[in-house]
Amino acid sequence: VLFTAVQAQEKGVTIPVLIEIDCDGHRSGVTPDDPLLVEIGRLVENEKGVILRGVLTHAGGSYKSKSVDDIRRMAETERSAAVKSAEILRGHGLSCPVVSIGSTPTVTFARDFTGVSEVRAGVYLFQDLVMAGLGVCRIEDIALSVLSSVIGHRKEKGWVIIDAGWMALSRDRGTAGQKLDQGYGVVCDIDGNPIKDLIVKSTNQEHGVVVNRNDQDINWEHLKIGRALRILPNHACATAAMFDRYHVISGSSEVADIWYRINGW
Amino acid sequence: VLFTAVQAQEKGVTIPVLIEIDCDGHRSGVTPDDPLLVEIGRLVENEKGVILRGVLTHAGGSYKSKSVDDIRRMAETERSAAVKSAEILRGHGLSCPVVSIGSTPTVTFARDFTGVSEVRAGVYLFQDLVMAGLGVCRIEDIALSVLSSVIGHRKEKGWVIIDAGWMALSRDRGTAGQKLDQGYGVVCDIDGNPIKDLIVKSTNQEHGVVVNRNDQDINWEHLKIGRALRILPNHACATAAMFDRYHVISGSSEVADIWYRINGW
Repeated sequence: VLFTAVQAQEKGVTIPVLIEIDCDGHRSGVTPDDPLLVEIGRLVENEKGVILRGVLTHAGGSYKSKSVDDIRRMAETERSAAVKSAEILRGHGLSCPVVSIGSTPTVTFARDFTGVSEVRAGVYLFQDLVMAGLGVCRIEDIALSVLSSVIGHRKEKGWVIIDAGWMALSRDRGTAGQKLDQGYGVVCDIDGNPIKDLIVKSTNQEHGVVVNRNDQDINWEHLKIGRALRILPNHACATAAMFDRYHVISGSSEVADIWYRINGW
Repeated sequence: VLFTAVQAQEKGVTIPVLIEIDCDGHRSGVTPDDPLLVEIGRLVENEKGVILRGVLTHAGGSYKSKSVDDIRRMAETERSAAVKSAEILRGHGLSCPVVSIGSTPTVTFARDFTGVSEVRAGVYLFQDLVMAGLGVCRIEDIALSVLSSVIGHRKEKGWVIIDAGWMALSRDRGTAGQKLDQGYGVVCDIDGNPIKDLIVKSTNQEHGVVVNRNDQDINWEHLKIGRALRILPNHACATAAMFDRYHVISGSSEVADIWYRINGW
């Protein structure tokens, strides 16, 4: 905080600060009942160059949930940790307008958002294969795909080579630890309908290798060179981050709009 | 080819084409002795909208080499496959000015480039932990790092939290299959000197978790909040692709230049 504050002052700007709350022991932040919470709040309040804006948390532990009931319990844990932290800060005379929560599973199934001012649920907009694997959405709900073309056949290995490698799909293997491993993505036709049992099994930088997950025969004629395919991603955030824009379609393959992304971190 | 040619003609442009050669059975392309090579060459030559420019190959199999001698043999296999393919095309009256090869291990140790017109070795410029694991470079040769800051301590778990997650480091785990698994990267001080046994063990989108790989005690005072660290990447290509520019330094932490990247695929 001190380092940031000095830099901010030098530039003549004031940086708004959210304190990260640990709601589930999953990663980082302070727990609501840790005296550090108020100590950090006071430090920020008294420093020039920064201003206390509120608290944020992310129930990353929800990704390991086994059922919708589990997710609902996690949602309430997430909400109550954030709201409790805000109340403690306010109880000590500190300002806390923002109460921010945010995992896609918890936000999808939460029944109560009392006291929450902001939801940061990234995958929520598009959904993805990890969420489908968790039961948060269905495969047909996934609204993000990578458009690709067949560029080669390795018939003796049962490989269909496509021009989408990890530079397009990302290296994310979020379904690897789930019940159904989807490789680097589920292969669909141009209309977004999954082609039975076809997944991207491996990726190089600009090449993807599509196989039948059950080692069944490939319909080579159906997947001839030049054929356009859509790949559904493991993790929408990681795949979208490989691009600088979205091509928006709606019920056809005509591009209705282009949305530019704000990339970086 | 036909699809591309039609589109190119419509736009009034001519697309130069390189034929991918399979030199090691690793991925895709045609082998030099496959009659398809000349067939593809003739198809491209006779199509409007495209022009035959040459051949390219990538000895991806070299990443599995066990020794420098192995890599040298692979380099000669790569070179001779590309050159032979070019000669076959030329022998059939087809134009083939470009003979392009390109894996970083083979290019580093190759003794003969006769007949080669272009080298596409991506990691070569920076080197990375995968190359160090292969014996292609030393750790201290790696010229690309991600600048990060300590943002938290989880002392009971032995975790130092940094603000570089996979959005900064990429999801690449190229050293996972090597003798020494470097996690998501080797942790260095601001001057680029590795801090003994510290690696990034896991990553979330914007958070990285640094641990001692041998479960030894962390020097918390040395790694206090706000401390700047540099992370050496598994795979230079994947990590660099997460950014739109390089900050070039030379012997100090002053930024001497900024190099913008051409991203995408």
